[in-house]
Amino acid sequence: MQKDFIQVKDLYRDKEQYIDKDVKVAGWIRTSRISKNFGFIELNDGSFFKNMQVVLDDKLENFKNIGKLPISSSILVEGKLVATEGAKQPVEIHATKVVVEGESDNSYPLQKKRHTVEYLRTIAHLRPRSNMFSAVFRVRSVAAYAVHKFFQERNFVYSHSPIITGSDCEGAGEMFRITTLDLDNVPKTEEGKIDYSEDFFGKEANLTVSGQLNAEIMALAFRNVYTFGPTFRAENSYTGRHASEFWMIEPEIAFADLEDNMELAEDMVKYIINYVLEHCPEEMEFFNAFVDKGLLERLNNIVSSDFVRITYTKAVELLLESGQKFEYPVEWGIDLQTEHERYITEQIFNAPVFVTDYPKDIKAFYMRLNEDGKTVRAMDLLVPGVGEIIGGSQREEREDVLLERIEEFGLNKEDYWWYLELRKFGTATHSGFGLGFERMIMYLTGVSNIRDVIPFPRTPKNCEF
Amino acid sequence: MQKDFIQVKDLYRDKEQYIDKDVKVAGWIRTSRISKNFGFIELNDGSFFKNMQVVLDDKLENFKNIGKLPISSSILVEGKLVATEGAKQPVEIHATKVVVEGESDNSYPLQKKRHTVEYLRTIAHLRPRSNMFSAVFRVRSVAAYAVHKFFQERNFVYSHSPIITGSDCEGAGEMFRITTLDLDNVPKTEEGKIDYSEDFFGKEANLTVSGQLNAEIMALAFRNVYTFGPTFRAENSYTGRHASEFWMIEPEIAFADLEDNMELAEDMVKYIINYVLEHCPEEMEFFNAFVDKGLLERLNNIVSSDFVRITYTKAVELLLESGQKFEYPVEWGIDLQTEHERYITEQIFNAPVFVTDYPKDIKAFYMRLNEDGKTVRAMDLLVPGVGEIIGGSQREEREDVLLERIEEFGLNKEDYWWYLELRKFGTATHSGFGLGFERMIMYLTGVSNIRDVIPFPRTPKNCEF
Repeated sequence: MQKDFIQVKDLYRDKEQYIDKDVKVAGWIRTSRISKNFGFIELNDGSFFKNMQVVLDDKLENFKNIGKLPISSSILVEGKLVATEGAKQPVEIHATKVVVEGESDNSYPLQKKRHTVEYLRTIAHLRPRSNMFSAVFRVRSVAAYAVHKFFQERNFVYSHSPIITGSDCEGAGEMFRITTLDLDNVPKTEEGKIDYSEDFFGKEANLTVSGQLNAEIMALAFRNVYTFGPTFRAENSYTGRHASEFWMIEPEIAFADLEDNMELAEDMVKYIINYVLEHCPEEMEFFNAFVDKGLLERLNNIVSSDFVRITYTKAVELLLESGQKFEYPVEWGIDLQTEHERYITEQIFNAPVFVTDYPKDIKAFYMRLNEDGKTVRAMDLLVPGVGEIIGGSQREEREDVLLERIEEFGLNKEDYWWYLELRKFGTATHSGFGLGFERMIMYLTGVSNIRDVIPFPRTPKNCEF
Repeated sequence: MQKDFIQVKDLYRDKEQYIDKDVKVAGWIRTSRISKNFGFIELNDGSFFKNMQVVLDDKLENFKNIGKLPISSSILVEGKLVATEGAKQPVEIHATKVVVEGESDNSYPLQKKRHTVEYLRTIAHLRPRSNMFSAVFRVRSVAAYAVHKFFQERNFVYSHSPIITGSDCEGAGEMFRITTLDLDNVPKTEEGKIDYSEDFFGKEANLTVSGQLNAEIMALAFRNVYTFGPTFRAENSYTGRHASEFWMIEPEIAFADLEDNMELAEDMVKYIINYVLEHCPEEMEFFNAFVDKGLLERLNNIVSSDFVRITYTKAVELLLESGQKFEYPVEWGIDLQTEHERYITEQIFNAPVFVTDYPKDIKAFYMRLNEDGKTVRAMDLLVPGVGEIIGGSQREEREDVLLERIEEFGLNKEDYWWYLELRKFGTATHSGFGLGFERMIMYLTGVSNIRDVIPFPRTPKNCEF
């Protein structure tokens, strides 16, 4: 049956082909205005952000019934596609037959009045039918595809890093435990410790916080690879920027240094923005009109400008010189806070900024140590309106230095046996970064809460739907 | 630095552009044969299945050192690309300079002799550098992209279903528990039960077994959607076809019945096969030569033939008529076993077969009940060599029937409040299916163990790397 119903998107985009012809569409009633003799239905079929206007008159046998249909009822419409002159929409359908597929109920919560995003989160099964969430989730889909297209066109291998991990190798954050043990009766060893040998994997297991270390394995086989999958943080953060489950994109490139890494990140960000601007014009105009007035100007500006590149040391200097008062005082050695990051990207440069070469003590053990012995080849990309969106580094490829760093961090070198072996058997200069996909969607849409760019968000005390 | 090094893939594919020119490549030594005055290195740079032959002579200043490099050492090579006539490979590089990037060690385990796949699983950090796994994981990447391309070209919305779920709604299999409770000291309520209100999500939480129910939400907003993400089974299955963590593709389409569903599944399978055949010819020839002699013939046969469609009732009749002895006897009402499925697809039809309309008692509650009251609008796709690769159905869109089915299955209707509301507020005929991505890769490559098509597989008692 589905192929009988032309997508509304096609009726708009290829209208010349359909005008004055009989067409069938299927969709949900967004609004309707019915008078005694005729009426108008705004029909959305999900294929397109915009609705199709359906014009009814009392020659339809079930005209009166249709007039009474609650909003969100689904109907099948036959009629002629007619060009409209001077109207808001370029075409409309003059219906000759309407079949009711699923009559809705007047208790449907998404009535025309404006709802708060907080309320809409409680009806996550219906909010994708609103303009705002329809636009967000389509942009999310198109942006995800842009990511794959960007890397595949460049011959990168897409590698699935494991979600369940037997180690807390990266130390990037608090982890969720995975278990099949009976929590009512946790098995113990003779020494009274939890007997993980009886657990499903025979050892402790957690949800991954990053696919990077596995991606490094793949980069040292395939040269250029990327992951794109869910990652997790068991942190009690109730901010609008943190979720317990989110998707990350992590490219890893071999025979490549930090300069290559920054170039790749800049190319990728611009590619995603361009792709979404080109493929979601209706959605992007909606955001620009109703969510963030400066959005399109900002995005267009970014794709046509070069990203700034400064060192951490320079960034600290600029912050100190600015005379700006910050909640967290600035001095060399501190981890930059969101207020500092936003000041740099918004006030000082008004452009995306790569900050590189951070103090080694505030970054991860696997980042390549610089000659100065004090800083590492790290990079963060800061963007206006969001702050940090990408974090990456050139990796420590020298086995002896890596081993020292592991020991400095108090980590157990046995846990890293295979990671160290990558440096023993044909090591190579390599680099990579992580892009939080939801941060990118927030940046693209202007939506300010991460809960509103994930279809079914998971946050502390919340895993509904 | 990376852009200095041309990908070997480009040197093969666009060789006319580079022949007799100076080029630089970077890669790992797969094999080398060095005599007193000259030598040959087979260099693999990860960008391409095939190696680049590097010809050395004693005019190189470090000729002797290079001769001693262990296999898997990484080197940077400058030289002239030369067309070779009548040789195995169309081009080779006559080196003028070789820089050692990372000297390997003679203890490198992937020496030239053939290893068992069981051994290679223990060195999952190195096996992607072998021919077999290099081919498998590149095909995996290209097939994943084909999935996205197929759906995006058809205007499907890619939706991320949540990985962490607060309910065991689908009942599709044993689940992994997720928790941040202290297992040494599990908090209890006054009644002595585990106090999940103190757990991270304030309730019991598990890893998802399917993204389908969430995908239905999205289909009833966007018409056509798909998920592609990891799913989990906490089952102690030690077979070559089961993993604890695997990726699933789950399209869901609205205003669409089981016929549409089968058509979509058939189109998708053919599209993926065609895309991989076109984009991985070297890898596919390798599989055909070394893994499964009939592979290319079988795949080419499948993309050019129509898939068979029969009902379950007919399938049972054919199995009974066949006179074949099965371990599990056949009668109407049984769940078909792999031996039955493979007999149908391999012996009876020698083609992919959709089996539809299964007895309601052996299928899930959400499948649409047929008029006969005994069967449901389910479909399984069976393929030669693998058995079931896709399972799907038309969904029960009638609120009253769905409620009855939920009660018949002894499920708690409160758990399904939003799933039921989808049927209340503008329900529509809709359908969907799930494709196990790893099963598809096994089918595409002829590789018979699921542990060998996942970079870092998770199975009972195993979550290394």
